Amino acid sequence: MQQTVRLGIVGLGTVGSGVIRMLRKNIALVERKVGARVEISALCDQDPARLKALKKGRQKTTRHWRELIGDPTIDIVVELVGGYEPARTIVVGALERGKHIVTANKALLAKYWDEVFSLASDRKLLVYFEAAVGGGIPVIQALNEGLAGNHIEKIVGILNGTTNFILTRMSQQGLDFKTALEAAQKAGFAEPDPSFDVDGTDAAHKLSILASIASGGWMRLEQISREGITGLDIRDIRFALDKLGYEIKLLGVAKNHGGTWEARVHPTLIPKDHPFAAVRDEYNAIFIHGDAVRDVMFYGKGAGQMPAASAVVSDIIYLAKGVANATAGKVPYVTYQRGVAIRMLPEKDIESQYYLRFMSFDRPGVLARITGILSKYGVSIASVHQDESHGQRGVPILIVTHSAKAGSIERSLAEIDRLPTVTAKTAALRIER
Amino acid sequence: MQQTVRLGIVGLGTVGSGVIRMLRKNIALVERKVGARVEISALCDQDPARLKALKKGRQKTTRHWRELIGDPTIDIVVELVGGYEPARTIVVGALERGKHIVTANKALLAKYWDEVFSLASDRKLLVYFEAAVGGGIPVIQALNEGLAGNHIEKIVGILNGTTNFILTRMSQQGLDFKTALEAAQKAGFAEPDPSFDVDGTDAAHKLSILASIASGGWMRLEQISREGITGLDIRDIRFALDKLGYEIKLLGVAKNHGGTWEARVHPTLIPKDHPFAAVRDEYNAIFIHGDAVRDVMFYGKGAGQMPAASAVVSDIIYLAKGVANATAGKVPYVTYQRGVAIRMLPEKDIESQYYLRFMSFDRPGVLARITGILSKYGVSIASVHQDESHGQRGVPILIVTHSAKAGSIERSLAEIDRLPTVTAKTAALRIER
Repeated sequence: MQQTVRLGIVGLGTVGSGVIRMLRKNIALVERKVGARVEISALCDQDPARLKALKKGRQKTTRHWRELIGDPTIDIVVELVGGYEPARTIVVGALERGKHIVTANKALLAKYWDEVFSLASDRKLLVYFEAAVGGGIPVIQALNEGLAGNHIEKIVGILNGTTNFILTRMSQQGLDFKTALEAAQKAGFAEPDPSFDVDGTDAAHKLSILASIASGGWMRLEQISREGITGLDIRDIRFALDKLGYEIKLLGVAKNHGGTWEARVHPTLIPKDHPFAAVRDEYNAIFIHGDAVRDVMFYGKGAGQMPAASAVVSDIIYLAKGVANATAGKVPYVTYQRGVAIRMLPEKDIESQYYLRFMSFDRPGVLARITGILSKYGVSIASVHQDESHGQRGVPILIVTHSAKAGSIERSLAEIDRLPTVTAKTAALRIER
Repeated sequence: MQQTVRLGIVGLGTVGSGVIRMLRKNIALVERKVGARVEISALCDQDPARLKALKKGRQKTTRHWRELIGDPTIDIVVELVGGYEPARTIVVGALERGKHIVTANKALLAKYWDEVFSLASDRKLLVYFEAAVGGGIPVIQALNEGLAGNHIEKIVGILNGTTNFILTRMSQQGLDFKTALEAAQKAGFAEPDPSFDVDGTDAAHKLSILASIASGGWMRLEQISREGITGLDIRDIRFALDKLGYEIKLLGVAKNHGGTWEARVHPTLIPKDHPFAAVRDEYNAIFIHGDAVRDVMFYGKGAGQMPAASAVVSDIIYLAKGVANATAGKVPYVTYQRGVAIRMLPEKDIESQYYLRFMSFDRPGVLARITGILSKYGVSIASVHQDESHGQRGVPILIVTHSAKAGSIERSLAEIDRLPTVTAKTAALRIER
């Protein structure tokens, strides 16, 4: 029995300082659960002001992460730097020096899943990463352990708090994308450079992690089709909500068709009475369908300092418990079958319902031409909505399709958008029920 | 490394046969995650027909559980008998013989928490019980591990599928309690003897387990105030829904006031737009509030064969993984502080908002008398609703109070119900937001 478990924390930004705050506040609870002393031995950040602000007692501080991971007294390295590098070098270096890892870094895991988990397994070390998906919601553990006996057939999630905040403002207040983004930045829910959030990369990182756990392999980022919210037209949000009864969300969707997977991130329409429609602002929600458990849903704050800290600290507790009792790493956390590629459905064969908005002159026969082309490619129509034109040059025609292949939609729209009566590129959004 | 982990399953009813079915169907997945063979070595049930129907290959079968727990080759005893006895004797006996336990038995754990977890801890054995609360929803693990760093401040749950099914029918179809119960029995969601479900005992068992984990102690059944749904008047469900906008649910509520707890199970009104209002039929949902994570919610099927089997099989996987690697039991699953009594708030000091329905003659001054008495006991009024009497003998007066102590409500109603103008016992329901 090891009497004291020693942590080294790298990265003292929002999450890092939240973790330190929470560990200090709840240390009695943490140590009771671990059954040993838990000590923050070393802090590392490039910014000396942060080190000075957070240092307490005899804690070592350093601006150089190599010094921290080289410290032989440290058992667990908590990586809260974020991004690909130097996070990857820190984590790999720490594993090579025999340290267990707690990380909140979804970008790192999505990109280096194979390297990180192969190395951890070879060295019999643990990598815990609850904070990487869904903030404080313990969905990683639920999927990895609580639902472990199920074949996972479907995962659908609102995985990015920033875009959910923006879409909530666009839908509820009628703001356009740019104004809604500024509101999110003002509220602290979007970074100064929000590209990874708004282009769907962050949600894809998280979907990669969930699908990797669910499949037992590694769902690479390149295997996930990605579409962000930057190109969204406020008119489609209004039409979908007011005329058709759909809310809009950026969803990550992974489906398992008997061992062949589809994985995609895109703005999606969901019926107004769908449980996800009530998931607003920075909240996240994840639906998981397993063959035995059927549907389960998890909901909570997907962003913010203390929810993320909650996940990091619970990882620290369970790792520290294992370190204290010399069991950590004997049993791997994630089951990862190295070298087994995940079989993917070709993008064009992915089936969804679609919302289509055509812009055309109000001429006789236009609707017949459009529906004729859709029918030619096997796209069948669930509903059509066209208002009177009142003399405008271009009128919107809204069509909701039955389930159709992405390839059929693409070829239909290419042909339709070449029609002389069609005045603008057709907008297409997928629908999930 | 142990090559094969051996299970003995006691109790082959709905859940037991579901577990066997799931283990057989998903055995490749299970064994990949465990990293060893997983063998159902022995089956036990009083009914020879069940044994015959489920036996496969060289499995031992017995009608006598003592034989099964005495089998030295068995590593894990899966107790799916349910109820207090002989379940307790089976679990205690199996622990004394060095077996780890998986159980779905909430009654057993609520009643014998101290005995079971003290013995498990002394013998360095594990007791897993994911299926005991929320069916397939991995809420035990979430609370115990995923939120481990939080001080848990509040747990609110729809914890009983049978009563939720009945209340859904009463609310949506206007059925009275008796007819709705018969519908639940017909649909397979209520036992022939539904007493433990409808009187709130089952929900209290589950709340006891959740609050024990959250507090680190043992929340005994006697510490939970309990009110079932048998006495519910269909009129109150209609009034609350149609006139005031509330749905009705049987909730388990545990709140932590800085180390002093309140815990109660009772029919409760919730606003129509509360996330729980959409939790219908046999579904369960659990809200947990931790000091860091804030609100998280879990949702899924709270009853049914395969959801329960999902939870049992995931417990088996994690136990078997530990058995195979000789780590099981070195670290306790639940942190339980023996001999530390949980401090409870006196029942009369528990504060809630209330819905009150008074029945009175339509005479001048009645409302003034009623509100005067409420005010005397410090109960302040949020809203009053009284329709014209149209000559009926007794008219209902609906009052929604601000937050008030149970003791004040009780004393007010005792006095009000003695008024000569009050024609029937006043109905009182708590409101949760």
